[in-house]
Amino acid sequence: MSKKFVYLFSEGDSSMRNLLGGKGANLAEMTRLGFPVPQGFTVTTEACTKYHADGKVLSSDLVAEIEQNLEKLEGIVGKKFGDPSNPLLVSVRSGARASMPGMMDTILNLGLNDEVVEGLAGLTSNPRFAYDSYRRFIQMFSDVVMELPKSNFERIIDDMKHEKGINLDTEFTADDLKQMVRRFKEYYKQNRGEEFPQNPKVQLLEAVKAVFRSWDNPRAIVYRRMNDIPYDWGTAVNVQMMVFGNTGNDSGTGVAFTRDPSTGEKVLYGEFLMNAQGEDVVAGIRTPQKISQLKEVMPEVYAQFVDIAKKLENHYRDMQDMEFTIENKKLYMLQTRNGKRTAQAAIKIAVDLVEEGMIDKEQAVLNVDPKQLDALLHPMFSASALAKAPVLATGLAASPGAGAGRVYFTAADAVAAAERGEDVILVRLETSPEDIEGMNAASGILTARGGMTSHAAVVARGMGRCCVAGCGDIRVNEEEKYFTVGDKMFTEGSYISIDGSTGKVYEGKIETIEAKLTGDFAKFMSWADEIRTLKVRANADIPRDALAAVNFGAEGIGLCRTEHMFFEEDRIPIVREMIVAKTVDQRKRALDKLLPIQRGDFEGLFKAMNGMPVTIRLLDPPLHEFLPSADEDIKSLSIEMGISFDELKETVESLHEFNPMLGHRGCRLAITYPEIAAMQTRAIIEAAINVTKSGLNIIPEIMIPLVGEVKELQYVKNVITKTADEVIAAAGVTMKYLVGTMIEVPRAAVTADSIATEAEFFSFGTNDLTQMTYGFSRDDAGKFLEDYYAKKIFESDPFARLDQTGVGRLIEMAVELGRKTRPDIKLGICGEHGGDPSSIEFCQRVGLNYVSCSPYRVPIARLAAAQAKIKADKQK
Amino acid sequence: MSKKFVYLFSEGDSSMRNLLGGKGANLAEMTRLGFPVPQGFTVTTEACTKYHADGKVLSSDLVAEIEQNLEKLEGIVGKKFGDPSNPLLVSVRSGARASMPGMMDTILNLGLNDEVVEGLAGLTSNPRFAYDSYRRFIQMFSDVVMELPKSNFERIIDDMKHEKGINLDTEFTADDLKQMVRRFKEYYKQNRGEEFPQNPKVQLLEAVKAVFRSWDNPRAIVYRRMNDIPYDWGTAVNVQMMVFGNTGNDSGTGVAFTRDPSTGEKVLYGEFLMNAQGEDVVAGIRTPQKISQLKEVMPEVYAQFVDIAKKLENHYRDMQDMEFTIENKKLYMLQTRNGKRTAQAAIKIAVDLVEEGMIDKEQAVLNVDPKQLDALLHPMFSASALAKAPVLATGLAASPGAGAGRVYFTAADAVAAAERGEDVILVRLETSPEDIEGMNAASGILTARGGMTSHAAVVARGMGRCCVAGCGDIRVNEEEKYFTVGDKMFTEGSYISIDGSTGKVYEGKIETIEAKLTGDFAKFMSWADEIRTLKVRANADIPRDALAAVNFGAEGIGLCRTEHMFFEEDRIPIVREMIVAKTVDQRKRALDKLLPIQRGDFEGLFKAMNGMPVTIRLLDPPLHEFLPSADEDIKSLSIEMGISFDELKETVESLHEFNPMLGHRGCRLAITYPEIAAMQTRAIIEAAINVTKSGLNIIPEIMIPLVGEVKELQYVKNVITKTADEVIAAAGVTMKYLVGTMIEVPRAAVTADSIATEAEFFSFGTNDLTQMTYGFSRDDAGKFLEDYYAKKIFESDPFARLDQTGVGRLIEMAVELGRKTRPDIKLGICGEHGGDPSSIEFCQRVGLNYVSCSPYRVPIARLAAAQAKIKADKQK
Repeated sequence: MSKKFVYLFSEGDSSMRNLLGGKGANLAEMTRLGFPVPQGFTVTTEACTKYHADGKVLSSDLVAEIEQNLEKLEGIVGKKFGDPSNPLLVSVRSGARASMPGMMDTILNLGLNDEVVEGLAGLTSNPRFAYDSYRRFIQMFSDVVMELPKSNFERIIDDMKHEKGINLDTEFTADDLKQMVRRFKEYYKQNRGEEFPQNPKVQLLEAVKAVFRSWDNPRAIVYRRMNDIPYDWGTAVNVQMMVFGNTGNDSGTGVAFTRDPSTGEKVLYGEFLMNAQGEDVVAGIRTPQKISQLKEVMPEVYAQFVDIAKKLENHYRDMQDMEFTIENKKLYMLQTRNGKRTAQAAIKIAVDLVEEGMIDKEQAVLNVDPKQLDALLHPMFSASALAKAPVLATGLAASPGAGAGRVYFTAADAVAAAERGEDVILVRLETSPEDIEGMNAASGILTARGGMTSHAAVVARGMGRCCVAGCGDIRVNEEEKYFTVGDKMFTEGSYISIDGSTGKVYEGKIETIEAKLTGDFAKFMSWADEIRTLKVRANADIPRDALAAVNFGAEGIGLCRTEHMFFEEDRIPIVREMIVAKTVDQRKRALDKLLPIQRGDFEGLFKAMNGMPVTIRLLDPPLHEFLPSADEDIKSLSIEMGISFDELKETVESLHEFNPMLGHRGCRLAITYPEIAAMQTRAIIEAAINVTKSGLNIIPEIMIPLVGEVKELQYVKNVITKTADEVIAAAGVTMKYLVGTMIEVPRAAVTADSIATEAEFFSFGTNDLTQMTYGFSRDDAGKFLEDYYAKKIFESDPFARLDQTGVGRLIEMAVELGRKTRPDIKLGICGEHGGDPSSIEFCQRVGLNYVSCSPYRVPIARLAAAQAKIKADKQK
Repeated sequence: MSKKFVYLFSEGDSSMRNLLGGKGANLAEMTRLGFPVPQGFTVTTEACTKYHADGKVLSSDLVAEIEQNLEKLEGIVGKKFGDPSNPLLVSVRSGARASMPGMMDTILNLGLNDEVVEGLAGLTSNPRFAYDSYRRFIQMFSDVVMELPKSNFERIIDDMKHEKGINLDTEFTADDLKQMVRRFKEYYKQNRGEEFPQNPKVQLLEAVKAVFRSWDNPRAIVYRRMNDIPYDWGTAVNVQMMVFGNTGNDSGTGVAFTRDPSTGEKVLYGEFLMNAQGEDVVAGIRTPQKISQLKEVMPEVYAQFVDIAKKLENHYRDMQDMEFTIENKKLYMLQTRNGKRTAQAAIKIAVDLVEEGMIDKEQAVLNVDPKQLDALLHPMFSASALAKAPVLATGLAASPGAGAGRVYFTAADAVAAAERGEDVILVRLETSPEDIEGMNAASGILTARGGMTSHAAVVARGMGRCCVAGCGDIRVNEEEKYFTVGDKMFTEGSYISIDGSTGKVYEGKIETIEAKLTGDFAKFMSWADEIRTLKVRANADIPRDALAAVNFGAEGIGLCRTEHMFFEEDRIPIVREMIVAKTVDQRKRALDKLLPIQRGDFEGLFKAMNGMPVTIRLLDPPLHEFLPSADEDIKSLSIEMGISFDELKETVESLHEFNPMLGHRGCRLAITYPEIAAMQTRAIIEAAINVTKSGLNIIPEIMIPLVGEVKELQYVKNVITKTADEVIAAAGVTMKYLVGTMIEVPRAAVTADSIATEAEFFSFGTNDLTQMTYGFSRDDAGKFLEDYYAKKIFESDPFARLDQTGVGRLIEMAVELGRKTRPDIKLGICGEHGGDPSSIEFCQRVGLNYVSCSPYRVPIARLAAAQAKIKADKQK
């Protein structure tokens, strides 16, 4: 039996979304419910997949099936395609499973040709309408199907206005439009080398192919990647009988939402234009009227529309976004779908629908996209200001939120400017741990290099600063303190604005709106918390971040990176003293100075977390990160430290690594310098004992990074337990503590059964695990990932969205092997993926106990965890 | 039931080697066979393991068991430990499963104290003998058990000689020796703070502990690592009744081999000394006599010894290495074991034993250590010259063989000097592909940085050049052309000698002996070839190496690295032209110039291999490896290339990578620049077609590196098949070719079922796979691996010996998943491990089809493969 590739609207319903796309399924559903829908048919998403698999060819079977359904449609509506005496005209629209901007635009009025237009003019007694429709069709078809840019047609229109001495399109006469059609067709022939297609069936098949092709255009690829939409979903094509809002003053067209999409308020919201086609509403040449005014213009149609809108919302149990056309006083529904909305509206609508008894809490939780919550947690640009701002450059949307300020090129300059009260954007080639104070002082960070998990991106997300990273469009000269984009130069103090949610960089200062959280938000999040079983912790290194995390609902710290403490201004000289130490004794003396400082850090963290679990990772980065590399910096540091340049230079050189990511770091440091691990353990346990005295029950979790072999873990664990037990005994108290490990090296995953003999918990470090499983570094992958997306080798960034097939397989192995050895082992994830909804779904599925993410992603993770639980239950 | 930790010699046999160690098992076996063995007992290897596990304590149970066995021994020999009237004295010796230098030395005469020595003097009427024995015991016990260096005792002896005005030890009188004992004991007390132990049982237990401790000393750790001996084997301790070769002229001691250990000739070989203890033979103060002379000295004892030697060889069916002592005309056997022998002797003995009908071919194949073959394939230093040479520095034994010559610091200087007829040692900080010509011109390569799989090491092994890599003891100044070791400076032209089989560097020029292969060798290897089922291929890039490989018995090329062809002088300008190309067209123009050159390369290879399979890997390294990085080099190259410095510098900077190992390389290059893969494919297929015309049947195997995801493979395979099919069609011939992939990224292993849908063969690239599975780079691991060995986290270098637990687990997964998808998939290994015997055993076990290694390791691999097959069959 051959597959059915085309469905009449009357053959489908809303459950067939995967096959018919969202638009097609909803048109079918509205047809089924008896609403006034211009009839038509849908070519399925499977036809799209087949088209691409067949080498971008419409099979003859599919062509035949389209023609058969076209005939059926002619029968239903009583008009005939290409028949001048009773012409059927159609619109052709794309419609994927998920609403997807970047796909092909609509083509209206398809079916017109030199004969049919004359018939239409006669039938409607409105040649101006007929020729206006025809010239619009030529324009859209040429642009969308044949890649002749619309702007070139606009230039012909402008020329004609100039010749005729008129200003507005509406001033063209029917004859003018006839002439315009002629000139359009001439232009088409010159540029395509053939006549504009007169055969309506050819027009239709070309349009269908254009929709299919647009599934594969660069904008669509980028959009899919950003929104986790798989390539193999494909798009459907909807072919629908035209109804005309532009036949005169009894006609019109409009769009409306059942609730206000920006506030969520329960009020019909939208606008319409009389005597217009859909594109006019968007074009902004005439100003549309508010939807409520339709009540005065056409009371009956308005009442009918209000009734339909209400029924649709009740039917779909969500806010609807509808398009309609009025043709000679008759209302037609062209589309309905769950409306896009702001984050604030999403929360309010979800809460209101529960309170109205329309949906239950689970459905409310499912209705809000976790990623949208970002907008509630960070400042955003005002939409009106943004609309006017020209984009200067585009980089990676590395940390959400918007920021505007003067550019500075060093951390010190940024701090100084912030102290003077300026808003600062820190611009760097790439950031390093020495820039942390500058990043903290800035309103936003812009870097020319580095990916989604570069230093700048990771730290900015942790701090809640917006960040655009890896912006290859800018060329930064840090020494001379300027950057350029093309010919434009931006010196220190120039204003720019950056949007870390989109990756866009703007010239000048754009107004931002501060985020605020409503009571609805708290209520909504409490529902998510009731549902979810995955715990949500935060990655936080200092009390300030920990407190932010607690405010966002974190239930512990999943990752405290102690190296960030080492970089602060008062510590780094001691850290360097430790690094250049020639003997264990010298190193211990430096460590003795660090001990009270680290103890203080940990006390602060334990206090901030108020008894919730805190996982502290021992020192991880290679030691050369704490030393300068340029000769001049080495020179000045050597003077500062009172040692010779040669000696310091030798230390720096001896620490050089070819592949720092695969170098002397993680537990390898603790194995070479056990005294560092001992000092950190002492600081942790002493801090825990001190804070316990204030009545909190603290069970510190000490985490050993980069373990690949159980004997590494054994060795470092021995150092830890020996130190910890001594400290506890000396204090004369009893204290429980846990020792666990990161699973971030593939070998740790495949030998997790051995590792679990020593580890009391695993925390999956999916950043490194992804790097090593794929064998590419996050800092270097930028060079080829664009090619990978363009050639559809990757559909998403494995550093942002967990690769469930490969990296995920290793995680599953580790979970299974780890639990086999130690059934009660605590399992979590602390890589960047811990805050990514699709990855959280994976974590739920493989049975982790918690996810840990940057503080500002905690609400997103809470919501995503709740959705993951609901989905998991449904699959049972 | 408690475990038995002590066995009398009469309780064991040679099958108990794992428990009793080699020495203990053989003493028991000789006892069982009725040979004259001084009786004793063995403390087991398991006791050693328990001692370390218990925190280096002898358990009271074990102490009791030792004491019980001591009592039994007293009963057997009719003497009493510590009884002056009839004293039992014992020797204490270590004895592991495998013979292991670096372990504790022997302690003789244990049981002597101030009283017993008097008794012994009386009983033997030989006070000089008694006190000589006592002073030797104090010296050995202090040195070996108490860590008071022997040399300090020697100083006391020298002082006494000076005082007495004598020259030789033998001139000391009994009274002198009595005084010497007193002075030794004083020295002991001063330095240990207590009296020399007088209780024989204390002496014994301390000696047992010292043997156990010596299992863990640094020399033993290094030896185990070099010889793949696991830590958990432990060592046994043999306690044996003393017999004395130094009681007078009716006594003596000696060592002998049943065949000549350096030539393999079937003749009793060895030496003896009358009136001496074992250590005198070694010490070289008196010159021992040849064993054949014993016939004249003591004809009956000689006849008895010859008879025993013959019986032992027949019993063990291998050449024996024996120690004996004659006490008052009575012969005692103190040890027998399979004797160490040179490579040449090993081959001759194995072949002779087969021809004598003593063993079968399988046993002969098992009797030769594959690693020994190296000595037959490379020049070696003459043993006599080497004995006198002082070691200057030690690095990694990166490529076997010995070389001596003048040092040069650049490839160009090395080439020039070689052309002048000089022997050259190329000394570099580290080598890069640009140094290849210089490496080829040199007799040996010495680098200061880099590990066993660094560029220098890999290339040197491929060329058969000796190489010492990562020699941290030397400091190289390449610019000023000198290196230093401590205070010594070696400028251009100085002579040094390096031994790539031991990693040692010597000052001056040491004489080398050229390798030569005998007819026995060919016969022996043919037996190995009959037995093995694993195919052995070679890694070879150019016809010269391929021919060498064929001479060594390679059955194909498992890895041809095409990048090595790119670096040659006539090509690199074109390669650079390709890299700086701004457009695909420019790049294609450069590639067009490379095409005929590459085609010629491949024709040469196919011809050299004469129809055997050839696997060619597409371009792998990141492109920056083909460009200079220093500003001055960029400047001169820019002039050469006729482009601006800025432009070239920009290209170099744009290619910079943070972690080149994890960067834009492997199939990622082919995805970004498919035209490179297309050119290489065209060159391969055209070459194959051309060579086929000469009557050979060529089925080229095209290998895609660094695949982690099947879509990568799909993409590149499409480029290959499209090009190849076009070339084949254009030539109007039929030609089969295979497309496969390296499995060198962990993700490829865990998704091997998908990968195998496209790959017709897998070749495990275990160098990269090891790096990524462990998460450390071979170039950087040198910094911490020493700590890992010292702290017993690693027992061997995972880049030299395959990590079967972790990396091996991934290989097993890949084999299983790959065969599930494609049952006839061809599986091989082409990493460095392909030439390592223990790794080859693993390859046999998991069912690979072939191993591929550097040409000079092919004979080793052939032998190891045969041994692996025999062992696998035995385990069935």
